[in-house]
Amino acid sequence: MDGARMHELVERLYPLCRSITGDGVRRTLEILSEHIPLRVHEVPTGTPVLDWTVPQEWNIRDAYIADSAGNRVVDFADSSLHVVSYSVPVSATMTLQQLRSHLHTLPEHPSWIPYRTSYYAPDWGFCLAQNTLDAMPDGDYEVHIDSTLGDGHLTYGEYVVPGQVADEVIVSCHVCHPALANDNLAGIAVATALAGELAAAAPHHTYRFLFVPGTIGSITWLARNFERVDRIRHGLVLACAGDRGSLTYKQSRRGDAEIDRVLRHLLRASGRPHEIVRFSPYGYDERQFCSPGFNLGVGSLTRTPHAGYPEYHTSADNPDFVLAESMSDTLATCREAFAVLDRNRTYVNLSPYGEPQLGRRGLYDSLGGRSDAKQAQLAMLWVLNLSDGEHSLLDVADRAELPFDTVVAAADALRDAGLLKEADGT
Amino acid sequence: MDGARMHELVERLYPLCRSITGDGVRRTLEILSEHIPLRVHEVPTGTPVLDWTVPQEWNIRDAYIADSAGNRVVDFADSSLHVVSYSVPVSATMTLQQLRSHLHTLPEHPSWIPYRTSYYAPDWGFCLAQNTLDAMPDGDYEVHIDSTLGDGHLTYGEYVVPGQVADEVIVSCHVCHPALANDNLAGIAVATALAGELAAAAPHHTYRFLFVPGTIGSITWLARNFERVDRIRHGLVLACAGDRGSLTYKQSRRGDAEIDRVLRHLLRASGRPHEIVRFSPYGYDERQFCSPGFNLGVGSLTRTPHAGYPEYHTSADNPDFVLAESMSDTLATCREAFAVLDRNRTYVNLSPYGEPQLGRRGLYDSLGGRSDAKQAQLAMLWVLNLSDGEHSLLDVADRAELPFDTVVAAADALRDAGLLKEADGT
Amino acid sequence: MDGARMHELVERLYPLCRSITGDGVRRTLEILSEHIPLRVHEVPTGTPVLDWTVPQEWNIRDAYIADSAGNRVVDFADSSLHVVSYSVPVSATMTLQQLRSHLHTLPEHPSWIPYRTSYYAPDWGFCLAQNTLDAMPDGDYEVHIDSTLGDGHLTYGEYVVPGQVADEVIVSCHVCHPALANDNLAGIAVATALAGELAAAAPHHTYRFLFVPGTIGSITWLARNFERVDRIRHGLVLACAGDRGSLTYKQSRRGDAEIDRVLRHLLRASGRPHEIVRFSPYGYDERQFCSPGFNLGVGSLTRTPHAGYPEYHTSADNPDFVLAESMSDTLATCREAFAVLDRNRTYVNLSPYGEPQLGRRGLYDSLGGRSDAKQAQLAMLWVLNLSDGEHSLLDVADRAELPFDTVVAAADALRDAGLLKEADGT
Repeated sequence: MDGARMHELVERLYPLCRSITGDGVRRTLEILSEHIPLRVHEVPTGTPVLDWTVPQEWNIRDAYIADSAGNRVVDFADSSLHVVSYSVPVSATMTLQQLRSHLHTLPEHPSWIPYRTSYYAPDWGFCLAQNTLDAMPDGDYEVHIDSTLGDGHLTYGEYVVPGQVADEVIVSCHVCHPALANDNLAGIAVATALAGELAAAAPHHTYRFLFVPGTIGSITWLARNFERVDRIRHGLVLACAGDRGSLTYKQSRRGDAEIDRVLRHLLRASGRPHEIVRFSPYGYDERQFCSPGFNLGVGSLTRTPHAGYPEYHTSADNPDFVLAESMSDTLATCREAFAVLDRNRTYVNLSPYGEPQLGRRGLYDSLGGRSDAKQAQLAMLWVLNLSDGEHSLLDVADRAELPFDTVVAAADALRDAGLLKEADGT
Repeated sequence: MDGARMHELVERLYPLCRSITGDGVRRTLEILSEHIPLRVHEVPTGTPVLDWTVPQEWNIRDAYIADSAGNRVVDFADSSLHVVSYSVPVSATMTLQQLRSHLHTLPEHPSWIPYRTSYYAPDWGFCLAQNTLDAMPDGDYEVHIDSTLGDGHLTYGEYVVPGQVADEVIVSCHVCHPALANDNLAGIAVATALAGELAAAAPHHTYRFLFVPGTIGSITWLARNFERVDRIRHGLVLACAGDRGSLTYKQSRRGDAEIDRVLRHLLRASGRPHEIVRFSPYGYDERQFCSPGFNLGVGSLTRTPHAGYPEYHTSADNPDFVLAESMSDTLATCREAFAVLDRNRTYVNLSPYGEPQLGRRGLYDSLGGRSDAKQAQLAMLWVLNLSDGEHSLLDVADRAELPFDTVVAAADALRDAGLLKEADGT
Repeated sequence: MDGARMHELVERLYPLCRSITGDGVRRTLEILSEHIPLRVHEVPTGTPVLDWTVPQEWNIRDAYIADSAGNRVVDFADSSLHVVSYSVPVSATMTLQQLRSHLHTLPEHPSWIPYRTSYYAPDWGFCLAQNTLDAMPDGDYEVHIDSTLGDGHLTYGEYVVPGQVADEVIVSCHVCHPALANDNLAGIAVATALAGELAAAAPHHTYRFLFVPGTIGSITWLARNFERVDRIRHGLVLACAGDRGSLTYKQSRRGDAEIDRVLRHLLRASGRPHEIVRFSPYGYDERQFCSPGFNLGVGSLTRTPHAGYPEYHTSADNPDFVLAESMSDTLATCREAFAVLDRNRTYVNLSPYGEPQLGRRGLYDSLGGRSDAKQAQLAMLWVLNLSDGEHSLLDVADRAELPFDTVVAAADALRDAGLLKEADGT
């Protein structure tokens, strides 16, 4: 799926009113199923999941504030952001003064609608542009939210690309945000494209894609897969994958997990502007995967990170805010990272005393004396020198400041010549 | 005791002729006893203490150099610095030429009197301003030192503020310097004020204040408390506590003792100019507490450090050289440091799989979506994430770059909600 | 041997046609034997050495390219660089066009002759200035190489200076390069001078000097001394020892071997421009000593490193390119490094509780109070404080930022006073 197709997917998903449960999520997963064979899970309200309980399901059909003349001054049909997510049903007439405590605006961006939720405390409210509020005269308003909140299910999607080994890489993204494009339709689009590519590629690791509501969704998945969590060797949480900013990689809680080292290597080697940040327990679902009991090697890849741009959690995070090229670039970085993860090995040099005679094996130039050693030959010397069972090929690439691909090619040649074997347990 | 009261104490102690033994120390401790109930120890001459022996006691009543007309050109009554500390008695007439090898001046600061000692080699001498010496014509001088050096005692003061636990924090300062205000009457005043505050505060740790002669005093204390030294968990040597300079914290020999980390955290978090320096085996009594056999977690807090200002060990280190505000500021820093030490705990998160649901426990805002997370909520997430039994609250504050108080408040709330317990052995 | 004598040695060795075997090496070792009593080893062709086999021996008497008029346009008699090392014999007439694939030039330095080898693939060729080639008209040329390649020996020299302990320091340099002065006649000269000095000095360590052909020579030595390799505690590979550049120390693969720390200490303490670089498996025979099976504490000292100057491996690396002063300076640095290695000890403070009373032992000034502590006294305090069996005198010098000599003198005084003993196993 190229950047243009990913952008089309963002545009198509944008109008759906997603939340942590409900038909918006279901419809989103249906559309993704056109691209990848998602397995959709429905977990009943009331199911205990770790320290939490699956909440009631919320759905909404209509909502508005109408003035005394009956004109809808705020209308859910215009934007799903207009209603505080999980608002209880309401139907009342009240003065503007009475209404104010239920209205949310962004005075510093008077034309933008904010995004607000109240998942776990029964409440209702409207989000609207400050300009709209300013234009509302005093007087009576009809307030109507046609929502339902009752026993139902929490819905999430899962897709597993089987690998050559059972060790897993998880790719997780949240599907609970309504009309917000960068956060997280762009992440969903990149994950979908990535899943499609990997399915066609017979990867080394098993890749598990999770399309889950934020927090409660990953907690639900972790609760239902508690016994299998130790299969997860690496992971990436994808979010904010499409803005104009450069890439930011937020490391796992461990800080030196292999995925952390892969992303650091790739981003540094790329020479491009980027940021590597330490873990913090705030952001996306890495919060759950990196809680101290799990402490998984799961980082988070974004462009401009969580809460790092003014459009974050507002109506200005719309499809125009995300670029096809940015999503393509995020996708390419994921692809490269997984290509490193899938090919990283730790070898033992079988001829560790002195250098083996590479020339005899056709691996070394016969003409000596030149001062410009070839990168391929340097890579072989580095792999031989560091292959003591303690250094992976990624370590070699980092230490030698050589491209990972060159190091892999050198290792392959040396292994084929009988000079390396894989270290036990890798 | 506020800055003004501390300055009064400095002024009152200034005229006494202190040395490593003798009545000047006794009178100093008597005055301190008006503020805190000091226990005064008298250790007889000849007592073996570690590698040393308690020396003879020295006292002095009068000393002068008089010219041939009988005028006292150098008079102990004017300044206790005029006599080399521990000078043996002398009564003689000699030429200026003969006298010169017994005279100490500071040519680079011709109006200042230097401070000199000869504790362990029998000798005598006078310290005087270079200007005074320059004005002395050749000729005969009468030299008189009415001192006694004989069996007696070494005197030191000790005050223990009992805590909720037997683990001890020691605060040590030297009481052997004569008319020198910053080094160390200011340190004595701050320690006295601190002791008074802690006595009123029912602290967590037991605090032990030592008012000891430098080197031989701390060695004597260590020798007499050898079996109890392993109760000392933390400590601070206080000196040069009142000059205009910014604070300098000299770390313990360990370099990562908890007291080192506390002071680094506080001074960095304060944003104020300061210096953190590594341990060196030169300075004050941290030399003894950090000798390799003891290797205690004892650092040293000063303003301008040891030998770091021209007035050091001269008559220019007089009460005008120390400021009430500087002593107040040093006191406040000690107070904060001990408040951290007393509240630092290591917890274990009892709900370590995923985040616990804070909202259900009233610990989290119900309205979601805002981009400005509150510090108190961030602090709870950090405490939960790092409370794996390996990280103390100070570690959390450092890692999260949050104020220690905020982290403690978060931990208290989480503990009260049943989400944390103290790690064993902390 | 001073710089001038070392330069004479370089000039004398320069015309000999060295290679990895043959009479040029033998003659070189004969000349070195005039200075130090070298033991010369002859290892037969076909001897298996680690992963390699000792190759056939190569000797050459004459070689030229003559034009149709019989004029030698390229003549081995003018420079041993003119023939590709290990060229098989050839005697033929061919067109310039046919000859070209056997000619090597440096177009970017048209007056310089490059250095090329073909040790392990039977081939022949000439190296010449681009200017010479440009002046050769089309036409027939007589090509003649009067070389022999047959069973014989690989020759290397070895010289052991017995020490007070069996632990060894190796100093290795390569003797296989023909008319190249900095690489490596300067290294050979410095090693020879160093060996002479150490022989006269009764050193602590046993010093073993190796004059070996690059790669195959060190591999041969390692193969023949496999069982004794663990006696080697430290080592230096010397090369490029005479150019105008500042010193470069390339660390061992371990990176924290004692030799690495010694050179870092000395070069930093010197305040002179220098470079410390990490190990890489490319360069000189440190490649073999630091292969993962051996992983010895062997670094490499050069001035401008391997391939780091345009004259490298060309006729411009001639005796004018190396300076007597540079060789003297390299020699002095080696001398200092070995003086540190030979005197580095780890002590245990026998009076570790508090400071011992140094004054009683005549080790401390009796006059106290001065602010300018003497370096010798500081050094004693540092040695006492850090001598816990974990810190060597080099560690003390590094930590205290004191000259190593001062630290050794302090330790000697303390040991003589019965305050230190050597830690076990050092």
